[in-house]
Amino acid sequence: MADQSPIHSIALGVGTKNQNGEWLEVFFANPLINVASSVVASLGKAIDWNGGNQTIELTKESLSAISEALGKISDSDAAAQLKKTTEQFQNSSQPLVAVIIEKDLDPQTVPEVYLKLQLLSHCLVKPHELNLNGIFGLLPNVAWTNQGAIDLQELPQRQLDARLKGETLQIYTVDKFPKMTDYVVPKGVRIAATSRVRLGAYLGEGTTIMHEGFVNFNAGTMGPNMVEGRISAGVIIGAGSDLGGGCSTMGTLSGGGQTIISVGKDCLLGANAGLGIPLGDRCTIEAGLYLTAASKVSVLDQAGKVVEVLKAAKLSGKSDLLFRRNSQTGTIECLTNKSAIELNTELHANN
Amino acid sequence: MADQSPIHSIALGVGTKNQNGEWLEVFFANPLINVASSVVASLGKAIDWNGGNQTIELTKESLSAISEALGKISDSDAAAQLKKTTEQFQNSSQPLVAVIIEKDLDPQTVPEVYLKLQLLSHCLVKPHELNLNGIFGLLPNVAWTNQGAIDLQELPQRQLDARLKGETLQIYTVDKFPKMTDYVVPKGVRIAATSRVRLGAYLGEGTTIMHEGFVNFNAGTMGPNMVEGRISAGVIIGAGSDLGGGCSTMGTLSGGGQTIISVGKDCLLGANAGLGIPLGDRCTIEAGLYLTAASKVSVLDQAGKVVEVLKAAKLSGKSDLLFRRNSQTGTIECLTNKSAIELNTELHANN
Amino acid sequence: MADQSPIHSIALGVGTKNQNGEWLEVFFANPLINVASSVVASLGKAIDWNGGNQTIELTKESLSAISEALGKISDSDAAAQLKKTTEQFQNSSQPLVAVIIEKDLDPQTVPEVYLKLQLLSHCLVKPHELNLNGIFGLLPNVAWTNQGAIDLQELPQRQLDARLKGETLQIYTVDKFPKMTDYVVPKGVRIAATSRVRLGAYLGEGTTIMHEGFVNFNAGTMGPNMVEGRISAGVIIGAGSDLGGGCSTMGTLSGGGQTIISVGKDCLLGANAGLGIPLGDRCTIEAGLYLTAASKVSVLDQAGKVVEVLKAAKLSGKSDLLFRRNSQTGTIECLTNKSAIELNTELHANN
Repeated sequence: MADQSPIHSIALGVGTKNQNGEWLEVFFANPLINVASSVVASLGKAIDWNGGNQTIELTKESLSAISEALGKISDSDAAAQLKKTTEQFQNSSQPLVAVIIEKDLDPQTVPEVYLKLQLLSHCLVKPHELNLNGIFGLLPNVAWTNQGAIDLQELPQRQLDARLKGETLQIYTVDKFPKMTDYVVPKGVRIAATSRVRLGAYLGEGTTIMHEGFVNFNAGTMGPNMVEGRISAGVIIGAGSDLGGGCSTMGTLSGGGQTIISVGKDCLLGANAGLGIPLGDRCTIEAGLYLTAASKVSVLDQAGKVVEVLKAAKLSGKSDLLFRRNSQTGTIECLTNKSAIELNTELHANN
Repeated sequence: MADQSPIHSIALGVGTKNQNGEWLEVFFANPLINVASSVVASLGKAIDWNGGNQTIELTKESLSAISEALGKISDSDAAAQLKKTTEQFQNSSQPLVAVIIEKDLDPQTVPEVYLKLQLLSHCLVKPHELNLNGIFGLLPNVAWTNQGAIDLQELPQRQLDARLKGETLQIYTVDKFPKMTDYVVPKGVRIAATSRVRLGAYLGEGTTIMHEGFVNFNAGTMGPNMVEGRISAGVIIGAGSDLGGGCSTMGTLSGGGQTIISVGKDCLLGANAGLGIPLGDRCTIEAGLYLTAASKVSVLDQAGKVVEVLKAAKLSGKSDLLFRRNSQTGTIECLTNKSAIELNTELHANN
Repeated sequence: MADQSPIHSIALGVGTKNQNGEWLEVFFANPLINVASSVVASLGKAIDWNGGNQTIELTKESLSAISEALGKISDSDAAAQLKKTTEQFQNSSQPLVAVIIEKDLDPQTVPEVYLKLQLLSHCLVKPHELNLNGIFGLLPNVAWTNQGAIDLQELPQRQLDARLKGETLQIYTVDKFPKMTDYVVPKGVRIAATSRVRLGAYLGEGTTIMHEGFVNFNAGTMGPNMVEGRISAGVIIGAGSDLGGGCSTMGTLSGGGQTIISVGKDCLLGANAGLGIPLGDRCTIEAGLYLTAASKVSVLDQAGKVVEVLKAAKLSGKSDLLFRRNSQTGTIECLTNKSAIELNTELHANN
């Protein structure tokens, strides 16, 4: 088997189904990536895996079979990990499932989507590294409550039943995406209001998401970062960059079009600022300034003289820029540390 | 009885009282509007309703009497619905109540206010269609917890008792208005952070309230809408309009004065933008621009030439406008698709 | 003992420890400040207090000893209060603790920090009145859940265990600071989303924190106030001032540098506005305007004529100012009710 490429990912999970037996969500214990195909083959044989991407429900019998098969592999951390999980699962009467993703194709099942989102939040893969095509169509809209995930069709009766018993059914979220912390709290992070970080967010070590911070799925921070603003779907924030309170990054789902917004290293987006272009490193956007791709910007040289007026989109990805609105003239200016000649060369490099 | 007009609304509810026996809140099962007076008369006879708007506590005996009376009406969905509810209520030992609102007058009791707020959130009436005079005075300030609604006087002892037992008393909200989702999750909506939608909000089908979205009572969306900004009390958003992240609409309770702000169909308020006038259809406010009623705006014709400078309030309710701040001059501009002559005619139609 | 100065503060608390026996947090019942040294001496003798600032764990025996000692003091409300608490604590099997802060020195233990934060939130001391040096280093990062405070090392196993039993472990916050309302709900306040007020916030009577409001520790409102914006660490808002939706105040922890931002009485910060200088009384910042200390501002006299252009920092603490961005020229203006001569005198008083 030495010639076989590793399996993309595998995990065992415990989840929730609705009254029709459809999966609402799955919590995975210790998902694994790049697993030796021999290990997956052993496990797979115990549950009739025939290769490919599969979602297979587990019974007490199949758990025992998996455990036995994995017990025969002595030199694999992955096998040991999976074996340990099967043992923890043995006493549960909740719906259990194995998901094997051989190759990173379009997801086909709800458990598969949940595994991919958890791979992101466990920081095993970075945003944009996974195929998430079609997940909005696959994911059911769910009520996330103190009694777990509840199908929206079943919710009104559950609410009334609870009230008549003098209980409250707390609903925290009604959404296709749950809170990340229901599934994983990554190492070395603080999240002041967990309702504002969706499963599928990637938070690098040393990230603090303050109360006004927000992180969508397939987006996140490389760490360390202080985040008091909003990281839209698809947006990545580089190490050492801070997002001020209430600042906005445009997402591809929310008006940013096809351009993926990103922030390089050691940048600062001021409070209530906004960003519609990818930034390089060591850039600053003044508090309160919303810079869209179409904003016309006066680029100043190191002496503060206007060198050129151009659309902000033209400055995409460049480093060491400071954007502000001149408080006397109302002009959006871009301050640089370069001479006029250097700027002209740089800005017209591709002409 | 053929000449009698229908009763405004009626509902049976289960609620919470404080230690003094005062109502803190009521959850209604299936509230009904425009109910045939004959049905209400039958129900009312069983609980000594004498006409008018009344809040009547229910006992097991009165529930049986209602059920029996309604059982004699064979051709009314409302009667069947109410009968079914009385049967569900039979085994509850919680405080139960019937609220009959014959005419839409100023509310007089806490249960009556709760019924009106739930009529809004069940999308049975639209914002501004109900008499809500004096509700701030009627509604008690309540701690909304995982143990239900708690009177603030009783809270400190409850907190200490819980802690000494090793439990936590989770307080989600301390407010006169609870979260909408404690009472109803309307059809076809997503609400990413339920703490940001107050009971009394109206969310039309197809509405998504993202994490940064907010909807106050007596306000809402006609659906479908994507809402990542704040819908203040009294504000209505038309079908197809989107509110960008962190955008603000001025409410009559919060600085918007007497003018009721609204947004027509297919509009876009950009991220971190703000709105202080009613908008017509197909309008756009650029990300980051706060347009107040007093903002002086340069109106441009279809060729981009300034036709007139006027206060934004003068553009209230007009369609097909795009507002932006010129990023070179700092001037707030209103771009239109009309000629200078058309604009002059339209802007001075009432002179 | 008449010559002895009172003890800074004392309180008995019930808390949570991790599996290593380290304190994660402490809830104090009725913390007291400025307590007669004779009372503390009596209590202290029962638990081997030797003077100074001490954190002493309590047993059933020490609780009895305290109760007995305090029972001998007949003329002290503080003694009666403390005695009552010991009696309530008698039946608890949770970790119990006494914290005595003789003098307001740098805190040395987790319970000491928690007592200081609760003194603030009980409105017994105002922001900036306590020595909080080094608290970020002392406080552990904790998962705040429906099962109480949980050490982050212990969290993953707890989450898996809950899921396998069909339960959910709700995590509300992962932070060094818990929500204020887990410990105290001060009198006469409303807090629409409790996750946005940190323990250590000071909310004066008559304060409403709306859904978009936020208050950090060692910061707050004198009351009454309507807060729909963000009060950063260290920021104080005077009586009668309102913060519009999404407005920002710069904190010393978040870019405001060494200058402590504050807002005087009867001010209004408009929605989505921002503040980087201390304001006097009766000032207004227009909706959407971010005023930083470095913003160049045109100061207008009572006739609307520009008197001088200066940095906003120079206007720190002055009253009766209205800041706006001229919507035609993009200039940040400061409108005043003074003549040019008065302004010149005032602005150059210290030259």
